[in-house]
Amino acid sequence: MVTAMTSYIGRLNTAIQRKRNSVVVGIDPRFADLPQELQTKYQAASPAQTGIAAAFEEFSKRIIDVVAPLVPAVKPQSAFFEECGPAGCVALGRVIRYARDAGLIVICDAKRGDIGSTAEAYARGYLAGSDPDAAPWGADALTINAYLGRDTLQPFIDVAVQRGGGLYVLVRTSNPGAGTFQNRVSDGLPLYRHVAAVVEELAVQTRGADPFGAVGAVVGATYPQEITELRQAMPHTHFLVPGYGSQGGTAQDVAKAFVPGGLGAVVNSSRGIIFAHKRAPYSELFGAAKWESAVAAATQDMINDLAKHVGM
Amino acid sequence: MVTAMTSYIGRLNTAIQRKRNSVVVGIDPRFADLPQELQTKYQAASPAQTGIAAAFEEFSKRIIDVVAPLVPAVKPQSAFFEECGPAGCVALGRVIRYARDAGLIVICDAKRGDIGSTAEAYARGYLAGSDPDAAPWGADALTINAYLGRDTLQPFIDVAVQRGGGLYVLVRTSNPGAGTFQNRVSDGLPLYRHVAAVVEELAVQTRGADPFGAVGAVVGATYPQEITELRQAMPHTHFLVPGYGSQGGTAQDVAKAFVPGGLGAVVNSSRGIIFAHKRAPYSELFGAAKWESAVAAATQDMINDLAKHVGM
Repeated sequence: MVTAMTSYIGRLNTAIQRKRNSVVVGIDPRFADLPQELQTKYQAASPAQTGIAAAFEEFSKRIIDVVAPLVPAVKPQSAFFEECGPAGCVALGRVIRYARDAGLIVICDAKRGDIGSTAEAYARGYLAGSDPDAAPWGADALTINAYLGRDTLQPFIDVAVQRGGGLYVLVRTSNPGAGTFQNRVSDGLPLYRHVAAVVEELAVQTRGADPFGAVGAVVGATYPQEITELRQAMPHTHFLVPGYGSQGGTAQDVAKAFVPGGLGAVVNSSRGIIFAHKRAPYSELFGAAKWESAVAAATQDMINDLAKHVGM
Repeated sequence: MVTAMTSYIGRLNTAIQRKRNSVVVGIDPRFADLPQELQTKYQAASPAQTGIAAAFEEFSKRIIDVVAPLVPAVKPQSAFFEECGPAGCVALGRVIRYARDAGLIVICDAKRGDIGSTAEAYARGYLAGSDPDAAPWGADALTINAYLGRDTLQPFIDVAVQRGGGLYVLVRTSNPGAGTFQNRVSDGLPLYRHVAAVVEELAVQTRGADPFGAVGAVVGATYPQEITELRQAMPHTHFLVPGYGSQGGTAQDVAKAFVPGGLGAVVNSSRGIIFAHKRAPYSELFGAAKWESAVAAATQDMINDLAKHVGM
């Protein structure tokens, strides 16, 4: 099937407006946290990695079944699949494809970055853009790391623009030690602001008729005053905001990432949703056996929580 | 088989002293540059990615057969395998295992980086250390990116120390635009020097009885004056030096990465060796059919070139 090329921001905003929220469900599977039924089903596999990969695939697909009617996008974390070795990569490929077939936007969180033709290989492999068949991994968008320099972003941008894919450059990450290098001040601004300036320039260059460019930014929810600062400094840049929920970011914090009208950002929650069966109030309400109901309730609660602070 | 844990630097230095050189052959396969016999053999496969992955696996294994008696280490570039999708990941896993079975040290060039338990997942998946069976990807060492902050390096270090694995943190990359962020000056020093200071501290913490720590640095050959500066600033840090040959770095340039006695660094060449059949003088001397002889000759020439400037 040939799909007409549409921009990443165009597809994403359509999905956001259809679902009436900007929630991204992060698919970060960990075997020890899976519902007991899945651990039991796959724990005897040999080699263990094959069983874990199969468990991740089933778990992820069932999460997708639950959240596809509710949210615009999912964000599989490549690391947990890669931890299972090649079998995990096979599972990741299937999960991405399954999510796209379910009508979800897929942001592959792999934080890739390299030079020249190597960066191009990553871009061509991951960024399918509007046609899932355009790249073997089939993702709509990819997270990338800019430490190597501006020239190393260009191959990613070229592929993204050509295929209607999106990029999220790490600007301000959500971890406690994010400041080690990101806060180093040169020419009066911390490093993350210099990265932000380059990203905003690239967003302007790649936005075409869209309000935001194909090049976006990762801006952690755990540094709320910096979200406000970055939203002002980057008016044409779409934000992917991790750190809501388990990591401590609140709806009030992440609301600062949006522009008036409720677009401009997507907010990710991983553990808080996919392992909702392990925490209150969902553990009490549903129990481990009804873990999918816990996922649905936690997703709906996050949607409602965001809606209080982000006008659509 | 249970293997006694040995440190990465211990194994690497043994290999360097046995082979009497510090050359790393970079395995960066690109289908269009493969010898004609391999392109012909695999080009009809369907889907194409499966054929390309199989071609990369055969090509890489035959490269390994040629270089295993000559050099201490190889560095597969994950991006080119990932470009083929999951089939490429399966091939990469097999190539790493084949190289270790051939007695080579394997540095997986994947430039990973993430926060907390996500970084730990990458570390556990890739860093096998002294026992190839300890991780599904089976690598001795892994390249990583520090932009996310010092706390994000710790999970990699914990796994590396526990298993006898090595890490190379991107400090100064070899691309023309490396300076965009790496050269930003704060507190009187460019960013790459601040990254270098953290890496040196971690190298000291992880060196045990070795001359260099489990945490090393990527320092590009294309900025020779900075190699000298970094060697002085990082006396306990092992260097992985890309950029020799095709990218313009000379043996005289990279010699500055070594300490007296000829240890302290490994120097990578990828295209210059693996695609030697496509360039003078090897294309004339051997022709495409004898591409493995071209690889052997180019490897031996690089060894001889380095030996003129690096005393062992």
